[in-house]
Amino acid sequence: MKREELIDLIRSRRSFLCVGLDVDKNKMPEHLRNDADGVFKFNKAIIDATIDYAVAYKPNLAFYEAMGIEGLVQLKKTMEYLHSLDKKAFTIADAKRGDIGNTSQQYAKAFLDPAGDYNFDSLTIAPYMGADSVQPFTVYDGKWVILLALTSNKGAFDFQFLPVDGERKLFEKVLETSRQWGNPENMMYVVGATKADMLTQVRAIVPDSFLLVPGVGAQGGSLEEVCKYGLTRDCGLLVNSSRGIIYASTGVDFAERAGEEARKLQQQMDAAFSSVF
Amino acid sequence: MKREELIDLIRSRRSFLCVGLDVDKNKMPEHLRNDADGVFKFNKAIIDATIDYAVAYKPNLAFYEAMGIEGLVQLKKTMEYLHSLDKKAFTIADAKRGDIGNTSQQYAKAFLDPAGDYNFDSLTIAPYMGADSVQPFTVYDGKWVILLALTSNKGAFDFQFLPVDGERKLFEKVLETSRQWGNPENMMYVVGATKADMLTQVRAIVPDSFLLVPGVGAQGGSLEEVCKYGLTRDCGLLVNSSRGIIYASTGVDFAERAGEEARKLQQQMDAAFSSVF
Repeated sequence: MKREELIDLIRSRRSFLCVGLDVDKNKMPEHLRNDADGVFKFNKAIIDATIDYAVAYKPNLAFYEAMGIEGLVQLKKTMEYLHSLDKKAFTIADAKRGDIGNTSQQYAKAFLDPAGDYNFDSLTIAPYMGADSVQPFTVYDGKWVILLALTSNKGAFDFQFLPVDGERKLFEKVLETSRQWGNPENMMYVVGATKADMLTQVRAIVPDSFLLVPGVGAQGGSLEEVCKYGLTRDCGLLVNSSRGIIYASTGVDFAERAGEEARKLQQQMDAAFSSVF
Repeated sequence: MKREELIDLIRSRRSFLCVGLDVDKNKMPEHLRNDADGVFKFNKAIIDATIDYAVAYKPNLAFYEAMGIEGLVQLKKTMEYLHSLDKKAFTIADAKRGDIGNTSQQYAKAFLDPAGDYNFDSLTIAPYMGADSVQPFTVYDGKWVILLALTSNKGAFDFQFLPVDGERKLFEKVLETSRQWGNPENMMYVVGATKADMLTQVRAIVPDSFLLVPGVGAQGGSLEEVCKYGLTRDCGLLVNSSRGIIYASTGVDFAERAGEEARKLQQQMDAAFSSVF
């Protein structure tokens, strides 16, 4: 999905919500836990209930890999379902990959190739290995690399805030250096909502890039703060909520409740960017 | 596999060779390319031909994921085969994962859990997300996290050598900080052979840790240099070769030729550590 299509989608749904499909079997409603297709059915119900309020879906690969190969079959079915819908959505493989150049090419093929099992629009990548670990993901037309800049976890403070090259912090250096590897048409950044006040520093370096913002909800980030510091004229944000939506209820009403939570966030988003466009 | 078992294995085979099972269908011998089990058969033949000269096997996940779910079935079969052998080997999932704590737990389950599809001994992890992204991998008894410190690619120069906190380089800071997260019984480090002269600096910080050294062969690293700067009394090294072994020939003699290449490396290793133990 190209940048213009994504912006159109955001404008038409009045939302920049990303739903994190981080499915843990133990947290699914009981009636789905022993169903071989339970994870797919869970995702399908969540998607159906939220797609009017969301523009993106982000399965985190770890949760599917933890279920073994069967988990990846469920992910494949989920992606096929998303691709089959008339209502479009931007898809993110939250995989946090990255390897030497010839190996990153293989990851790009695995996740972004239209002929592959998943055909995601984008993939999250860790920056530690530098240019050749990132660039193979930018060559697919209309596909994106989403580079980790500032993550939402406690461990972010171990390295990401270290001063490098004098005054700048490592995450700022990552943002700056990576501008040579891509552009706002094929590269986004992960910036955790738990560090929303840092968005001003991020925007100073990448004013036009989309930011994928995790950590709203369960991890404690505030949507209001994120909008205040992160919104641009093109929106420029995808705000993710995972557990707050998909586990809003663990009963038979899980999808209905997920839809309600998504709708609440969509309404807050609509209000927030009424001031922008 | 515990540290003592690994050291015993190294002593008995007089080798610290790791064979990188980075299987690309297009580079396999032609008679296996259209065989649904071709990748497994290729790996099995490589393992049979090299296990007397090698102590570890390292499939890079990217190559299997690029083949879609079928690729992971081939990986599972390969791991089952390795586990079935009387001749033991240390197994490394070269996956370069890492995510927030509760998500890294899922990756640990996917790759290290004895009840899972793979039951690897270890997993490579990128350090960018800090402590809680790494620690979930150290809780399995006899299992290891292998943290990226200094990689073998050109992109390593983008961030890993940046001066942080004054004089130290980022990779040195990663080594130092990570010592609080694990110990030489459950944590190793990736240090690329293309930067063998840096091993002195690495050894100054982690004198007793095992180092996984990629980049010998196709990427240009020298085994002699690696031994000179990296060997310890407990060996302390696993040196990986992928393409130089598994694609030594693309003909029907591929396994025989792989065995020969592995044997050559084993002999160099034997000579190198005769000086140490």
